[in-house]
Amino acid sequence: MEDLQWKTGITKVEPNKILLRGYRLDELIGRISYGEAVYLTLKRELPRQNEGQMIEAILVSVIDHGATPPSSLAARTIASTGAELNAAVAGGILAISHYHGGAIEECMTVLHDAVNHQREKGTTVEEAAEWVVESYRNARKRISGYGHRLHTQDPRTGRLFELATQWGIARGFVNMARAIEQALKESSGKELPINADGAIAALLCEMDFAPSLADAFFMMARVPGLVAHIDEERTRQRPMRRIHPTDIEYDGPEERERE
Amino acid sequence: MEDLQWKTGITKVEPNKILLRGYRLDELIGRISYGEAVYLTLKRELPRQNEGQMIEAILVSVIDHGATPPSSLAARTIASTGAELNAAVAGGILAISHYHGGAIEECMTVLHDAVNHQREKGTTVEEAAEWVVESYRNARKRISGYGHRLHTQDPRTGRLFELATQWGIARGFVNMARAIEQALKESSGKELPINADGAIAALLCEMDFAPSLADAFFMMARVPGLVAHIDEERTRQRPMRRIHPTDIEYDGPEERERE
Amino acid sequence: MEDLQWKTGITKVEPNKILLRGYRLDELIGRISYGEAVYLTLKRELPRQNEGQMIEAILVSVIDHGATPPSSLAARTIASTGAELNAAVAGGILAISHYHGGAIEECMTVLHDAVNHQREKGTTVEEAAEWVVESYRNARKRISGYGHRLHTQDPRTGRLFELATQWGIARGFVNMARAIEQALKESSGKELPINADGAIAALLCEMDFAPSLADAFFMMARVPGLVAHIDEERTRQRPMRRIHPTDIEYDGPEERERE
Amino acid sequence: MEDLQWKTGITKVEPNKILLRGYRLDELIGRISYGEAVYLTLKRELPRQNEGQMIEAILVSVIDHGATPPSSLAARTIASTGAELNAAVAGGILAISHYHGGAIEECMTVLHDAVNHQREKGTTVEEAAEWVVESYRNARKRISGYGHRLHTQDPRTGRLFELATQWGIARGFVNMARAIEQALKESSGKELPINADGAIAALLCEMDFAPSLADAFFMMARVPGLVAHIDEERTRQRPMRRIHPTDIEYDGPEERERE
Repeated sequence: MEDLQWKTGITKVEPNKILLRGYRLDELIGRISYGEAVYLTLKRELPRQNEGQMIEAILVSVIDHGATPPSSLAARTIASTGAELNAAVAGGILAISHYHGGAIEECMTVLHDAVNHQREKGTTVEEAAEWVVESYRNARKRISGYGHRLHTQDPRTGRLFELATQWGIARGFVNMARAIEQALKESSGKELPINADGAIAALLCEMDFAPSLADAFFMMARVPGLVAHIDEERTRQRPMRRIHPTDIEYDGPEERERE
Repeated sequence: MEDLQWKTGITKVEPNKILLRGYRLDELIGRISYGEAVYLTLKRELPRQNEGQMIEAILVSVIDHGATPPSSLAARTIASTGAELNAAVAGGILAISHYHGGAIEECMTVLHDAVNHQREKGTTVEEAAEWVVESYRNARKRISGYGHRLHTQDPRTGRLFELATQWGIARGFVNMARAIEQALKESSGKELPINADGAIAALLCEMDFAPSLADAFFMMARVPGLVAHIDEERTRQRPMRRIHPTDIEYDGPEERERE
Repeated sequence: MEDLQWKTGITKVEPNKILLRGYRLDELIGRISYGEAVYLTLKRELPRQNEGQMIEAILVSVIDHGATPPSSLAARTIASTGAELNAAVAGGILAISHYHGGAIEECMTVLHDAVNHQREKGTTVEEAAEWVVESYRNARKRISGYGHRLHTQDPRTGRLFELATQWGIARGFVNMARAIEQALKESSGKELPINADGAIAALLCEMDFAPSLADAFFMMARVPGLVAHIDEERTRQRPMRRIHPTDIEYDGPEERERE
Repeated sequence: MEDLQWKTGITKVEPNKILLRGYRLDELIGRISYGEAVYLTLKRELPRQNEGQMIEAILVSVIDHGATPPSSLAARTIASTGAELNAAVAGGILAISHYHGGAIEECMTVLHDAVNHQREKGTTVEEAAEWVVESYRNARKRISGYGHRLHTQDPRTGRLFELATQWGIARGFVNMARAIEQALKESSGKELPINADGAIAALLCEMDFAPSLADAFFMMARVPGLVAHIDEERTRQRPMRRIHPTDIEYDGPEERERE
């Protein structure tokens, strides 16, 4: 037989002992948050500062966005055929792609381009922002992560950046994201405020995650939302109903404050 | 046109305002943990006690179990064909089914059967445990959540139950899970200790989650693990390699302590 | 290393030689139809009679049913996010489940129950049909494969049964399917004509396929339809559009005859 | 409500009447082959010549290639967890991507590049073939559709081209595919014969299918193979077994002739 042995550096599993990136999993349980565990799993090291809570804030910020996004509709459509949970969740995940969630990765690339330009050319943040807006316009490419079809001021962005500042995460990339927002406004004459995808992109850049992992954060965040939609579809609706994509009334609890 | 309007009680999305189960999402970000947000999304209310950190502990406990589980192998196999992240993660999710993760739901049913029997018949915990072990044996059905092909003492179980006791979560279902462990040992003459699936089942029962949502916790937990495997496959391996299911050497960090 | 060698009886692949169930694949190409190849792949033998063309007729009969079925909508929803073809087709396949396509398997079980009753009890076809309708009604179970929300006379059923008679495929199961149609009408007072799922169920029973493979025929048939919907979504629609599930106008060629 | 009405040109469904691209579906059943129906569904017109049987030959040629391709292994891995048929088939479909099946689309692009060059520059077929091999080498890109890790003479290629010639399908693209094979040999000094992907690419070009639909043919062809592997996994193997990717013995029928 050919030698097919291969190596992995993620988890070591031995009888009665599991090491995640070198740490005993049983000692991590209850001592680190899920956000810290996500960081450790994907970045190979425990976070040194507040990255764990930053990740939790990111995950909470996009945990659900109602029934109209394609991931919710795909999951509900599949659930309505009587399919099992794994099929319906997988269907929702498959709808997280270029135009839905994909903006995070694209915006990370824009931010990296701009910050690299700033460093290499020794420009100011504002000049680099103008340069990147200009070069995307010349290349007839859209700058992802700005503007929203519903929100003129995405309520998640301000809160995420406020926390990032407070927790010492916000540095060059958040500044650049803001400078690009300004440059876009000047260039286009329109308000194109940073949306949740853009805000998350800046924060993932700050924490030095690879752009190729960007969609993963959206998927991690959204699984509970998808499951809630699947559960509601199963329990409140009849199988095989016609699912209207926008004529949806919210009948959950009215706005309320935490106690 | 026929009236296709329908209702959802999960998330209300208005311009510049998002309500999750009635709470402003931007006010939740950074104030509640991901575990609390999962609870709110699926149970419609914020947790009153320590359920949020219990959920985080559960998610951390099964965030990864190495490269040999079918979900890891399915995700890697798909990633090795050059597929996009959504396809590879979806493939991993599709492998979370009856024999892989499904034990959580099945064990929840066993625990509910036993606790219902105890309440209805006014028996002791031990008598109810013996009854359920006996009735499953008579029906030639396996009691899921006990025993592990590798771990004789699953390192995750003890830690999860210890935290559940400390946090006031462990009550009747954890006791019943332990009593069934004892009854199984007496009935079979073999050690069949509670595994991570069984421990999670007991804790989800304590927090009053529906068994139909059990697999969802395993999926939420495992997405970061799947992504780490996909990322490692893409960066360390050549496309279309033959993926051996067990001849895998761990070459990550040696056992280490948190600082 | 443990011995992991395993066996398969489907295809033997050697350098420059591929055997499908023992036949040289290169000698089958162009000599047998796809329907015959499907039969060989799933049943291990080449068809002896007209089963190959019967399978082709079945596949053609459900190759597409417009944009409203959940499989079409799931595939289009995923395609509209910019996902790759494999993701969109997989999403469509995931929507083929109990209430969409699943009727074929359920109806096969009904037909087997009825024919077994007839044989074991020595009843007439009509008596067995009445018995099965009665026992399903007593068990409050629905008999799948009869009635359609749109078609009062499913145009596919008559044609499939006509061909099955002409090709010598129609025997006991087709008769039983017709007798159940009559018994349902007498029992319910309503017309519940055999639909395409029911017709295919009867024909798969005649060709002795296992009910566990029933959905597979629907999947094989529908892939081209799903691909046509995905292609149309990509080429005629903008990404992330809202996809109405019923307000759809057909603008393809008017009714026309083959030359 | 906003106007969400949209249009489709694939299938018109009315009570008791189904039109596929304008033709009554019930009149097509049994009169056209599955291959012709695939052509009609994807190309909007019935084939004028032998395209239907060419498609059937293509589908038969890649209906299965044993248990080692990633699509077979992904489908089996998911099936071994007890997942339903839709989940296991979808998992197999998800593994049909750039490095597995994707060569068909890439090779179609190469062939179009070469034939366009020939037409625009008025070169001979051989000169255009040399040009495309040269330009891919200069761009350090691989020409897909040539060479196979197992077959030095892919048994499917010769047969497909022979039929294509006989049926009047083979014209410029098949010639170009052969000329590129020759140019590759001269350029690299190695035999890199056209494999099944390359042969299918040439034939899809001859029939004027869009390269974006290339993977669809591989998916249509492979579903029966995937189902056979899933069925065999369920019936011959125990759940959750370790699936070795190459140590697989064929124990099906010995080589045999059609009667």
